[in-house]
Order: sequence, then structure tokens, then C-alpha cells
Amino acid sequence: MDRTEADVVVVGAGLAGLAAARELVRAGREVIVLEARDRVGGRTLNHDIGDGKVVEVGGQWIGPTQDRLAELARELRVGTYSTYDEGENVIEFRRTLKRYRGAIPRINLAVLLDVGQAQARLDRMARQVPLEAPWEAPKAAEWDSQTLWSWMQRNVATSGARELLTIATEAVWAVEPADVSLLHFLFYTHSAGKFDNLVGTSGGAQQDRFEGGSQLLSIRLAEQLGERVRLSTPVRSIGHGDGGVEALAGELRVRARRAVVAIPPTLTSRIAYEPALPGHRDQLTQRIPQGTVIKCMALYERPFWRERGLTGQATSTRGPVKVTFDNSPPDGSPGVLLGFLEGRAARQLGLATPADRRAAVVDCFTRYFGAEAARPVDYVERAWAEEEWTRGCYGCYMPTGVWTSYGHALRAPVGPIHWAGAETATVWSGYMDGAVQSGLRAAAEVLEALS
Amino acid sequence: MDRTEADVVVVGAGLAGLAAARELVRAGREVIVLEARDRVGGRTLNHDIGDGKVVEVGGQWIGPTQDRLAELARELRVGTYSTYDEGENVIEFRRTLKRYRGAIPRINLAVLLDVGQAQARLDRMARQVPLEAPWEAPKAAEWDSQTLWSWMQRNVATSGARELLTIATEAVWAVEPADVSLLHFLFYTHSAGKFDNLVGTSGGAQQDRFEGGSQLLSIRLAEQLGERVRLSTPVRSIGHGDGGVEALAGELRVRARRAVVAIPPTLTSRIAYEPALPGHRDQLTQRIPQGTVIKCMALYERPFWRERGLTGQATSTRGPVKVTFDNSPPDGSPGVLLGFLEGRAARQLGLATPADRRAAVVDCFTRYFGAEAARPVDYVERAWAEEEWTRGCYGCYMPTGVWTSYGHALRAPVGPIHWAGAETATVWSGYMDGAVQSGLRAAAEVLEALS
Repeated sequence: MDRTEADVVVVGAGLAGLAAARELVRAGREVIVLEARDRVGGRTLNHDIGDGKVVEVGGQWIGPTQDRLAELARELRVGTYSTYDEGENVIEFRRTLKRYRGAIPRINLAVLLDVGQAQARLDRMARQVPLEAPWEAPKAAEWDSQTLWSWMQRNVATSGARELLTIATEAVWAVEPADVSLLHFLFYTHSAGKFDNLVGTSGGAQQDRFEGGSQLLSIRLAEQLGERVRLSTPVRSIGHGDGGVEALAGELRVRARRAVVAIPPTLTSRIAYEPALPGHRDQLTQRIPQGTVIKCMALYERPFWRERGLTGQATSTRGPVKVTFDNSPPDGSPGVLLGFLEGRAARQLGLATPADRRAAVVDCFTRYFGAEAARPVDYVERAWAEEEWTRGCYGCYMPTGVWTSYGHALRAPVGPIHWAGAETATVWSGYMDGAVQSGLRAAAEVLEALS
Repeated sequence: MDRTEADVVVVGAGLAGLAAARELVRAGREVIVLEARDRVGGRTLNHDIGDGKVVEVGGQWIGPTQDRLAELARELRVGTYSTYDEGENVIEFRRTLKRYRGAIPRINLAVLLDVGQAQARLDRMARQVPLEAPWEAPKAAEWDSQTLWSWMQRNVATSGARELLTIATEAVWAVEPADVSLLHFLFYTHSAGKFDNLVGTSGGAQQDRFEGGSQLLSIRLAEQLGERVRLSTPVRSIGHGDGGVEALAGELRVRARRAVVAIPPTLTSRIAYEPALPGHRDQLTQRIPQGTVIKCMALYERPFWRERGLTGQATSTRGPVKVTFDNSPPDGSPGVLLGFLEGRAARQLGLATPADRRAAVVDCFTRYFGAEAARPVDYVERAWAEEEWTRGCYGCYMPTGVWTSYGHALRAPVGPIHWAGAETATVWSGYMDGAVQSGLRAAAEVLEALS
């Protein structure tokens, strides 16, 4: 048994855990970070495509108001550049393909107006959800008792508008409107500011990208932390009490005064706690699943769609890839089309063979951008539900009834154990920016407790 | 390291695991049962109240059509007796207390008719849900996209009827109508036959009790299995492949050709699998939480309510104890009042001090049955969310979207790993009868695979 001691043991070397660790080290504390994987970065992951270039198979974008993430990138000297957004977008609406410029596709006006009124109402409702305590919204009980699907049935008149809002839900939460509590939809929207922030490219959450790939943030943080970060060290149990904590990971035993557990909430109960955690905390973790997304990229010699005046952004009601982006490196070589399989599409095609899945994805690219898309030179994908140490992306979602009954347990420390991770954020919940916020918040809790 | 081998390793010595083990032993297979607790019986648990008598702090009843459980009890020579059901029931409807005889309380006729029409409609819909595949119901997508709360808002006109249906939902599922998918409510109802079967005493699921307490079934099964059952042996990991399985529990390593994992689905992912399980199976387990119930009993020298012509059964819209029973031993001594804290009441009072909780429960008994209830000679309770190896009762429930997207993974074996437990049953899902069915079904799967 390899024994060691620290002031704080951090479980998980994603952005949240690393941001917490750095803050604690800056405050003069001894920290050990235990990471299950053989790499840092959690849900951010660079994939080498040769010539020193990468594409990201996990989270990748940064947008306006994501100030904590921007500040971290500046400090770590990781630059950003704009997501390619020049030209016309494509919409496939009920088997008809159209090109359009800007945010609003040229489809049936009644549908567009219906989407607009729904979005305005949802934004208004979202502003009434307190970010620190969504269960205190004036209509929390009513909103948490119904799914987004039920709300749309009553408040969105056209089936076309319901289809478009469904695509947005899949794109942002990687779930279906049937899965998610209306209150959670509203919390998450408010947490990002407003609906347009979530779905927008220029001006929204998909506006900019990181030079060298988003995982570089975690890699640089880990470099600063040096030997404090232990890879391939999954924590299996945490003893805790007045005397502090003791984390066990294989042959390693770490004693510390406090723990920061910075992994998705649903995974926190896969660690054995001694003594066992309170029922309300455990039951929360039974009710806070991760979404389902497979991120798929096809590589081409050049971004041929740009030559045709296309952004590479498509939206389709047909799918299975319903949302795409141009994900080429800064110099546009190779050309990379990015397509997401989200929610039901990810669940269904997650059961298919890799060859069938690739064919389905490339078929979508071909429909949206032309025959040249049919023969990519390479294809890269990542199914996050298969990843043992994440088990779904982008983040968690709350089914009905969870925020109002269990929300109070999301961040509340259990004795010397603190909780971090993008899901515990109040701003940009579920995003890299939220991960950083959560790490800083957990570090502040710990420093307060140790002072 | 203590190494051993068997044909089949069973994880969990509740009714499901033990029923599976017995069936496998009968078929000539070598079996080892690994149980985390220091006792068998899972969610059934006898509590000694002296004089050789017990009350059950877990599952306890058997009713008509629970044929698998009845057969097992006969084989194990565990007798049954009727739940005390003589006299008048009490209903507290909006702060007015009334006595009534039979199934139908004497309250507002419009409310009664409204409950009746809702129940008839729900029963009709339930019959359309295939028990082996609820996702194939003609309206599965629509029913799985909304909560029971949403359905009641549109289909139950009176708030009184909604309140009564809410009590029934809390009593049967230990959740709120806001928590549960309408499709799950319908599946579960069909699985029990019809709604009245779930909520009824005489003629329903609460009709009879077991002499010596329901845990006696598991104790007798374990006696038959002898040294095959290892207590205090929590399985922490299961390796699996073409060669079979290898279960690790502390210093014990069991190699076997097949495994039957017979614990609540949400807990199955707290075991580490090598290789990791497929994403769809893992994501199912993130979406299938246990309900919340605290079973509370007050003991009195004699069942004084019987002298006043009362059954001991009360229903209250006010609560926090909304449903009660006479839970005295067969000879009526001592008198035992049983009250359930369910769903929201269990979540809220689960956070209270034991003294405050007891006071709240006894206050309910006093309102329903008179001042004599105020001074019990003893008080017994069990909060199942706190139990590390169950983490909620009575069983699991499905939030919206789960049956239609993940239901296929509920029973599907993963290589040599089979799944049992009351939640995987098609008849009397969530009940002891369902647990037995699931054990027999898993045993049949294993025998088929080994033949």
C-alpha cells in the first residue's frame, strides 16, 4: 500500500478538478489529484489528425459571457479563433433542402413565428428561475411536474415549430423534449443567459475555438500541477469523518483534510463511501443522468463546401445527424465536417455497427453539402456513453421532479466532501465555463473550511 | 486471496437472487451467492419486538394472483394470515375526518365519480401496454413523453380526485405523479392486473401476511442453500468474457461460467465491470431510480382502534402519513399501527431528526385513531433510502422517456451476466412476487445458456 497525505484530495482531472486544484495550490495548500483515465481533460479530448493538428472529439467551443473560461485561457496562453461561419447555412426541413443566410431559415412563416413566440416565452420564464435555487422559482412545482414535450404540446401550435425546438433541445441537452423537466430546460437556459446564447454560432456558445484544441487547457493546468496529478488511478472508496478523508485507489491511499469530487454527479455514487452517504444525496445521484451524444467528424482534403458559399452548418428535421459544423483547423486543411448524433439518434445508432453508423453520418453530410462529401479521407467519432469515466455527454439533465425534491443536495458538501463538475455550476451549467466556475467554487468552500 | 469456483455466481441474497440460486441448485448446478449485508432478504426484514414476535420493516404482504410467491411460501412451509380488515376505515379529506365501510369513502360524489372514471380509463390504457415490451404499446411514445401529473391535469377534472390519485401513486410507487412516466404507471398497473389490485387490502396486494414475517422466506431459502450463501461479501467488480465471469468481493475471488446480478438496477452500475458495460445498459441504470419510503410503526399495548370498530386503515390528503394499516401480530398483541411516509413526505421527513419524524407520525395516528395513539410503548421505523444496499423502496420507477429509449436493456444479458430483481419482472413488477419471477426467469436463461 502506497500511503500519502495532502490537505486536499481532488477526484477527477477534468477542467473542474484541475481548476479547483490550481486554486488550492495558489492558496498554499497541498493537493493531490487522482484521475481514473490515463490522461487529463475529462470530456475535452484532442484527437491527432497529423501535421501537428487536432480535432476535438469532446467539448470544444467558447462563446460570449463565458468569462471564467476566457480568463483561464488567457492565463494559460491558449489562443482562440472564430468558428468558420461565412456564407450560407443549409436547412433540411421535411425533405426540402434550402440555403439561407443568418440565423433565420427561409421556411414556412407560421412556423418561424411560432418558434419565435415560444422562444420568447421560454426566455421570459427562464429569467424567473433562480440559478442558485431553481426550486424557488414562483412556478417551480408546476414547471418541474411536466416535460418540455408536454409544454410544447400545449404552447406550440405548429408541428414544424415543435420539430425545430426538438432539434435545439437535442443539440443543447443531447436529450429529447420527452426526457427533460421543463424547469431544468428553463434553469439551463437562464444559466446561459438566454436561449439564443445556447444555439448560436457567432454571438453564441459556438462562436470561438481554442488553438491547439480545448484539451490543451487541461494539459497546461496539469503541467503546472506537475506530480500532484496521478493518472490511471480510479478512486474506489472514500472514508470520511471529523478527521478528514481517506481516498483509496488501488494500492494508493491518500489521507487529506478535505475532498473535492469533480466527476459527473451520476458517477459519484459509484465510489463507495464509508460511512455511506445520506439518502437524499444518494437518491439525487440516481436521478441525474448524462445525455447521449456521438460526435462524428468526416475529414476531406479541403473544405469544399466553402467554395460553394456554405458555412458547413446544416440543420435537419430528418437526421439522424440534425446539426453540423465546419470543424476544420484554423488553416482550413484538411476540411472537417462535424455532425452530432444526439438524444434518440445517438441511442439508436449507438447500437449500430461502426460501419453502419459512419454510413448514416456520411449520408447526411452528402445530402446537406453535395456528392463530394460521400468520400471522406478519414472519419473520427466518439460515443461518450461508452466512456467508463464519463458515461454520457454533454452533461447531465434533470428529469421531472428532481430539482424540486433533490436540488438542494447538488452542491451541499457531505462533511469534508465537496462536489464540483460542470453539472454543479450556476452559470453555463454543463459547459466548460461552468466546469471552471464549479472548481473555483469548490476550492473556495474548501479554503473557507480549512481557514 | 480466497479463490473459489462455481457454475454460477449470484450477486444479492434477496428473494430474486435466492430464488434463482435454488432453481439452479435444483438443476444440478454449483452456485455461490454473494450478499453485501450480514443478512439475507434484501428489502424484506423482520424486526424483533419480543415474545418471539416480529414486525416487518420492509415488504410484507401477499395478495391474489401473486402465484409465484404463494407457491414458494407453500414449498417453504411459511403460512399466511389475513391483514386485519374488520370494521370501518377512516378518511381525512381536507381536514374533515370520516369513517366509512368498504372500498369507497363517503366524500363529495363528484370527486368519487371523477376518481372512478379516471381509474377506468387508466385500467383500459394499461391493458394496451405489453408487459414484455412496454415500448411497443400503440401510444408508447405519447404516454412516455408525459408525467402522470400532466395526464391528470388534462383528464381529471376535480382537484379532490387528483389528490386521491396522488395518494394512491405515493402509496404504490413511493413517488409523486410529477416524477413518473405515464407509460410506467400504466405498465406497472397492468403488471399487477389492474389498479384495484395495487391499492386493495382484502382482494388486493395487501390482503395477507406471512406467519413469522416475510423475511422468513429468504431465511428458509438460505438455510436450504447452506454454505453457498456468503454474507458480508459486497461484490466490487465483475470481470467477464467468453470464458465466463470473475467476481471480486474483498479477499474473495469467484470464477464462474455465468453471473446473475439480483440487486436494484440503479445499484448494478456501482459494481465495476471489466470490460465496461455497453453504453445503453449503463445509461439505463442512470435513469431508473428507487422510490422513497419510510415505513413507520407505533406499538401499543393493545389494538385499541379495533374496540372502536376501526380497521386501522386510514387515508389522508393531509399527511404526512397518508396511508395506515393495522400491523399487529396475528394474536393482536401488541397493537401495531403502520404508517407510510412516501414520496415527497419521505424526502422531507428523511431530513428531519428521528424525534421530529416520530412526533409527526404519531400526530397522524392520533388524528386518525384518537388520543390513545399519542403514547405508543415503542416506535420502529426504516428509511430505505439510507440503506446502502437498497437505496430506496419499494422499487424503481421510470421517469419519462426511459421505457421507450432504454427498456430493451432492462433484462437483456450482457455476455455471461444476467439481471434479476423485482424491477425486472413482467408480473407484479416491484413486488416480492415479481422478485421470485425474475429469479426463476434469470435461472432459466442461465440453464439454457449452460446446456
